[in-house]
Amino acid sequence: VGVAVEPMTQASLMALDWGTTSLRAWLLDRDGRVVEHRQTDDGILKVPIGGFPPVFATIAGPWLAAHGPLPALACGMIGSRQGWIEAPYAPCPCTVGDLPSRLAIANATFGHLAIVPGVAWDPGQRPPDVMRGEETQIFGALGEAQFDGLFVLPGTHSKWVVVEAGRIQRFATYMTGEIFAVLRQHSILGRGMAADDLHDAAAFGDGVRSGLGGSDLLHRLFEVRSLGLFDRLSAKAAPSYLSGLLLGSEIAAARAGFGDTHGHVTLIGAAGLVQRYVEALAVAGIAARPAAADVTVRGLWRIALAAGMIAA
Amino acid sequence: VGVAVEPMTQASLMALDWGTTSLRAWLLDRDGRVVEHRQTDDGILKVPIGGFPPVFATIAGPWLAAHGPLPALACGMIGSRQGWIEAPYAPCPCTVGDLPSRLAIANATFGHLAIVPGVAWDPGQRPPDVMRGEETQIFGALGEAQFDGLFVLPGTHSKWVVVEAGRIQRFATYMTGEIFAVLRQHSILGRGMAADDLHDAAAFGDGVRSGLGGSDLLHRLFEVRSLGLFDRLSAKAAPSYLSGLLLGSEIAAARAGFGDTHGHVTLIGAAGLVQRYVEALAVAGIAARPAAADVTVRGLWRIALAAGMIAA
Repeated sequence: VGVAVEPMTQASLMALDWGTTSLRAWLLDRDGRVVEHRQTDDGILKVPIGGFPPVFATIAGPWLAAHGPLPALACGMIGSRQGWIEAPYAPCPCTVGDLPSRLAIANATFGHLAIVPGVAWDPGQRPPDVMRGEETQIFGALGEAQFDGLFVLPGTHSKWVVVEAGRIQRFATYMTGEIFAVLRQHSILGRGMAADDLHDAAAFGDGVRSGLGGSDLLHRLFEVRSLGLFDRLSAKAAPSYLSGLLLGSEIAAARAGFGDTHGHVTLIGAAGLVQRYVEALAVAGIAARPAAADVTVRGLWRIALAAGMIAA
Repeated sequence: VGVAVEPMTQASLMALDWGTTSLRAWLLDRDGRVVEHRQTDDGILKVPIGGFPPVFATIAGPWLAAHGPLPALACGMIGSRQGWIEAPYAPCPCTVGDLPSRLAIANATFGHLAIVPGVAWDPGQRPPDVMRGEETQIFGALGEAQFDGLFVLPGTHSKWVVVEAGRIQRFATYMTGEIFAVLRQHSILGRGMAADDLHDAAAFGDGVRSGLGGSDLLHRLFEVRSLGLFDRLSAKAAPSYLSGLLLGSEIAAARAGFGDTHGHVTLIGAAGLVQRYVEALAVAGIAARPAAADVTVRGLWRIALAAGMIAA
């Protein structure tokens, strides 16, 4: 007659968001709840060639030692050409069920790391577009809800994504965040700017209205300089104006491409940046609400379930 | 009874184009013909605070020693806030006759240096725009012809200028050249590019067509990356595609702002860059012809005449 032993742990999955500049990892229990969480700055830009297995071992080693064999699933730029192993792209339209057959498998010191494929929108008559990591966040935000809507994921490269009936239908990338950064740091526009990044709501709003008002971004960028020369924009307010101008330009272009509403507009991203987009979208008359903070781990859980990686 | 002595020289004006990265100076005779020419890299970015008088003395000293007292007139960024002395802006519409009353006068070791004012377009309901140096080139290209037309002056900051009956009527600046440079050197788009700048006419044309085709530049810039990821754009051709994309975007925006033709379209600038604009404008169905190479010195001569600086 045996003794019923409560298993030491309910751990069932190691979930990783392994991006360009950071690595976040969660240990999940059999219901998908977070048991433990780690975060490091070991993004793919920092890790040298051949360095991914030891970084992964640092995260996974203690969890495997404590909980026994566990599957591992990662999303993000770790699956890019500059990452550990290149994962393919799933074509649009794409459901969560289209991802498992395209997982890339990296051989780790202990077991394997499965890497979520990216998603590609390749309309043929126009150049293709790609995402890596955002698909996981979107499927996490959707959950089982399957609602139609527009997802906006601000960042270095913003994504605008049309979702219908649980499918990623089509999307477009806008280089807004990177353009802001390189203009701020390396162009004549940055020379006139104050060093700190205090948000000036009025200048930001003026910038958004200018960006929304015209399709001549290469010209309007020069406003940051000319308004400064005429003492109509202070060095302190200039970064907010430039930021608003770029967000307004992105919104105008995306609205022209995707139409006005698509039902829900959901924002996914860092809280501060999402707040700027809520403000800018409001100027354009578009109401948007932020997604929950844990959409990435929710998405990894859903993909792991779809892939049959989690023991029943 | 005296002896008729042929004067040692016919020199009548020292004309300077003193810009951001270079200084060109011409000694002109009483008919405005070039007697001597000097060029250095003493642009305002290189010259330290207090350094303008000695640089000017290096140019003017030998000419004054050889020819006696001569007036001196300069155009360009030497009249900006970062230059020797800030020259004002003449408002649009602006003829060559509107400039003399706004000359700025810098005190040099020998005599004075008069600096041509910039020109401002300040429509009130929109942010202002400014030029410095381009007004001199345009008045030089116009000569006494007074024709209507559109002038395009490509460069770090391209200018599109509407001229009617000898007047600069209105204009717009496009930051095309600087955006290309910062994206090439500092963004992810530059990482995939070959180091040399071989012109790829096919990729350039594809870029121009994409830039002409949409008002969503922040999105289309990402094409340089996505086409590369799908092996549809080589590292060698990528700079030409990006250049074409930006020129196409500039042309689309300017055409929307200024209309299609305005009679003559005249290009003023460095020969290689002008050739690219001729190609890009041709894709857009706009015929353009380069101006003569000496428009800057022609313009300085006209302004000096209008200002009464030249002894009759």
